Amino acid sequence: MSENTTPTTNIDQLGEFGLIDHLTRRFKLNQPSSLKGIGDDAAVIDASGKRVLVSTDMLVEGVHFDLMYTPLRHLGYKAVVVNLSDIYAMNGTPRQITISLALSSRFTVEALDEIYEGIYHACEIYGVDLVGGDTTSSQKGLVISVTAIGEADADKIVYRSGAKAGDLICVTGDLGAAFLGLQLLEREKRLFLEDPNIQPDLGDQKYLVGRQLKPEARRDVIELLSEIDLKPTAMMDLSDGLSSDILHICRQSGVGCEIHESRVPISEDAYHQALEFNMDPITCALNGGEDYELLFTIEAEDETKIADHPSISIIGQITTKEDGTMLLTKGGNRHHLTAQGWKHF
Amino acid sequence: MSENTTPTTNIDQLGEFGLIDHLTRRFKLNQPSSLKGIGDDAAVIDASGKRVLVSTDMLVEGVHFDLMYTPLRHLGYKAVVVNLSDIYAMNGTPRQITISLALSSRFTVEALDEIYEGIYHACEIYGVDLVGGDTTSSQKGLVISVTAIGEADADKIVYRSGAKAGDLICVTGDLGAAFLGLQLLEREKRLFLEDPNIQPDLGDQKYLVGRQLKPEARRDVIELLSEIDLKPTAMMDLSDGLSSDILHICRQSGVGCEIHESRVPISEDAYHQALEFNMDPITCALNGGEDYELLFTIEAEDETKIADHPSISIIGQITTKEDGTMLLTKGGNRHHLTAQGWKHF
Repeated sequence: MSENTTPTTNIDQLGEFGLIDHLTRRFKLNQPSSLKGIGDDAAVIDASGKRVLVSTDMLVEGVHFDLMYTPLRHLGYKAVVVNLSDIYAMNGTPRQITISLALSSRFTVEALDEIYEGIYHACEIYGVDLVGGDTTSSQKGLVISVTAIGEADADKIVYRSGAKAGDLICVTGDLGAAFLGLQLLEREKRLFLEDPNIQPDLGDQKYLVGRQLKPEARRDVIELLSEIDLKPTAMMDLSDGLSSDILHICRQSGVGCEIHESRVPISEDAYHQALEFNMDPITCALNGGEDYELLFTIEAEDETKIADHPSISIIGQITTKEDGTMLLTKGGNRHHLTAQGWKHF
Repeated sequence: MSENTTPTTNIDQLGEFGLIDHLTRRFKLNQPSSLKGIGDDAAVIDASGKRVLVSTDMLVEGVHFDLMYTPLRHLGYKAVVVNLSDIYAMNGTPRQITISLALSSRFTVEALDEIYEGIYHACEIYGVDLVGGDTTSSQKGLVISVTAIGEADADKIVYRSGAKAGDLICVTGDLGAAFLGLQLLEREKRLFLEDPNIQPDLGDQKYLVGRQLKPEARRDVIELLSEIDLKPTAMMDLSDGLSSDILHICRQSGVGCEIHESRVPISEDAYHQALEFNMDPITCALNGGEDYELLFTIEAEDETKIADHPSISIIGQITTKEDGTMLLTKGGNRHHLTAQGWKHF
């Protein structure tokens, strides 16, 4: 949160509308389709015959984030990115967002500025407009609710339900890093609570911590798929963990799957950090959530289009429902995949 | 909340996806434009060249509602209605909603069912589809965030910024009743806390209490405006209170206004209850919020189109900015209107 030396302004000094003006004055509408943003009862968006995509997520302090180690601007950035990731996961392009915030009186205007700094940054990087929202007080803690609105050509949208037996299963980037970044942050928090004189030591693990605190959505992959004219048969983003999320595709497509443990991409940093924690790297990659990579299936004949692409790994194939949802281990064993991803209850 | 005799199911018994299935299984997609609802990364909405309207609101326990006297199904109903009201206030038609809920572990599945019962009822009454959302835990209390998506023909949308000097100022229904309903509920709560044997006595004030707990959005008025081919020059819904909300129209339109105190509609129930509380009825009507009536301006030549309509009162006229924002009292005095509406900070 803000330094002790920075000025503090109580939220009630600005009033509700002054606060909204204050927080949103830098935001300009950039999309031609954003006909009306903040300042009226609703945002007005020109759709021109395209499909409108809407996605919403709520982040709650103490459940989804810990302000002890989450910089507020990263929190604002992440709250936006995780919603944009959902729009990309439909093979769409995000265009607008709305933000609702509930926060207790312990937050100052400067703290809110930090959150909005991150929101602003995400809007700039991903080229989306903030078109509305709501800011209110809470009895305790901070709650952020984001709705993302995007568009897509009707024939480009990719659902979770289109996977067919014989399709190849692909993931982007590498998995498990965000989970291990969280473990590092939790370790430093415990050490700090035991002895506040201990300074956090995260210098060597910037990649892992960055994956947790400031994830990115795979816009680059969606743009790549368009360039190489490849439409996945099914797609979603990895928020709960691969072993949990692939089951959604299998269930909604009425198919089974076979994931090859040896092909699941794990970064070197994640691999070594897992071992240092006495954890199995593949378990972290299968069950760690919040990587926000894309999981998608393609027809086998499209394999050449993505072969050797550094950001995409083919990790298995879709089978029939009767074959079940299986993991092939490096040792040659077959296990049933079970959902062990994030649980918020 | 639920009776002591009803069965209770802990939320974690269902799991997150089981819970979503459980809560949403009754909801069907009814709008032709709802191409994809719950169950994928984002909702898909066909816009067909029309304008898409998006509105979002967050309701926080202890700030916007008190569960001691708010039945959960009314809360779910109201959370939806206040967002639909925003879409109608643009002269649009709501088509879809998303709902995000954060709730602490003290809530049972039965309690959630009650909330969704109200949401379902509102969806049925207003003909909108629930197309997405998020359900998560909170450290304390209940937070509901609703996003409404609507549509309108481009040339039908009414902003707050279109009022011109000489326009007539109209409101629908009557004002102040929701505020007085809240005062009644707060009184009964105080009496109950002092002596739990005292039973609430709200029988005579069903109208006022109903206006607070179960408000309706003025879809009927939007339909009427279409039938009589009347497009307001500016419009918004009354959520903060007339004296606060008319200032939004004046500021965004760059105009002044003159409200006639004697023409502000007040129900008989509200009038008598205000006097019983030793309050000025007009003060309640001007500053009480949450009536969710429509406030709009029309060109003077359109007056005949709405003359004598029982649901619409002409309460004043738009003046120039230099004339200021004024209230003409029954005694013939002129006062500056000041925003004294709801403040959440």
